[in-house]
Amino acid sequence: MNREEREAFARVMLDDVISAVCDAGCRVTLLCTHPFTHPRADTVVKDLGLNEALNECLANLQEPVLIIMSDLPLATPESIHRIISTNCDLAIVPGRGGGTNALFIRRPEDFHVDFYGASFLDHMAIAEEGGLKVEIVDSFRLHTDVDEKEDLVEIILHGRQNSRKFLTDRGFSLSIEKGRVAMQRDPHEEAF
Amino acid sequence: MNREEREAFARVMLDDVISAVCDAGCRVTLLCTHPFTHPRADTVVKDLGLNEALNECLANLQEPVLIIMSDLPLATPESIHRIISTNCDLAIVPGRGGGTNALFIRRPEDFHVDFYGASFLDHMAIAEEGGLKVEIVDSFRLHTDVDEKEDLVEIILHGRQNSRKFLTDRGFSLSIEKGRVAMQRDPHEEAF
Repeated sequence: MNREEREAFARVMLDDVISAVCDAGCRVTLLCTHPFTHPRADTVVKDLGLNEALNECLANLQEPVLIIMSDLPLATPESIHRIISTNCDLAIVPGRGGGTNALFIRRPEDFHVDFYGASFLDHMAIAEEGGLKVEIVDSFRLHTDVDEKEDLVEIILHGRQNSRKFLTDRGFSLSIEKGRVAMQRDPHEEAF
Repeated sequence: MNREEREAFARVMLDDVISAVCDAGCRVTLLCTHPFTHPRADTVVKDLGLNEALNECLANLQEPVLIIMSDLPLATPESIHRIISTNCDLAIVPGRGGGTNALFIRRPEDFHVDFYGASFLDHMAIAEEGGLKVEIVDSFRLHTDVDEKEDLVEIILHGRQNSRKFLTDRGFSLSIEKGRVAMQRDPHEEAF
């Protein structure tokens, strides 16, 4: 995909995540670095790094909060519901490769985030230091963040929403190469 | 890892899967191409391809069966329990990249398997043709099969059993490279 397509695709993935979170019964606030509007979400603009911006928000929240990344197009209301229905102080969804894809924090004032690197381990350590009870949510839908070309295969296979349509409308489909599933793109469409 | 280590690691992963399945309350039968014994499992030896061997077994089974691959070292009794407690005719656990990592089949005589390639889609199609109700089990523990070096990261992060110990005993650990988690191996141990 070229830069324009990547940006459009990021926006479509965001729409899908917002739909899943809204349909799970949550009110959505987008944390942005630049002014942005969305029909189904409020917006907070903070010209800060991800951790600084989130921790500033957490310090001022008096109710449970779900932090979720916008590159999780396989999210469904059911998978979101599994996070927010935890009985623990913290529910964490590990991303592939040690990241954190979502965090449910029952008492935001008792927690701070530390994204990037092995943030799953960092968040587990922060919870342990704070004596918090943690649930690790076992979901491939929320574990699958979209970083690499191979991740698009999962969207074609398991996507139910706009992200899948975005790809199929632009000529992406599955191909079987050496017994494994790969992505191909219709030659009439822009080169992948 | 060299060939000897790979074989030993495959055996340790098998032990972990058998433990998880046994601890979920199932009786385990290993389908092997060569004679093999295991303290916690029966063995059936069939010198056939995977699909031919499994379909021969299915045709003769009168009770529900779980088919699970042996390279799923993150399997836990809880994740296995999610599959076998389905209300549907079939529960399927997709693997990363279109494969099938586990299948629970309520009436084996009504189903046949078709592994390799996009077997997730093939199994969904076979179920649809047979009018079977299907549950797709949303578990990253069972979605994560071990094919690539990067998959070992998940074992170090989320493994609870012998596969994790096998790796750490042999000098494998996590490293952070460019903000992402990777595997490293102690230079005193054999080159990766």
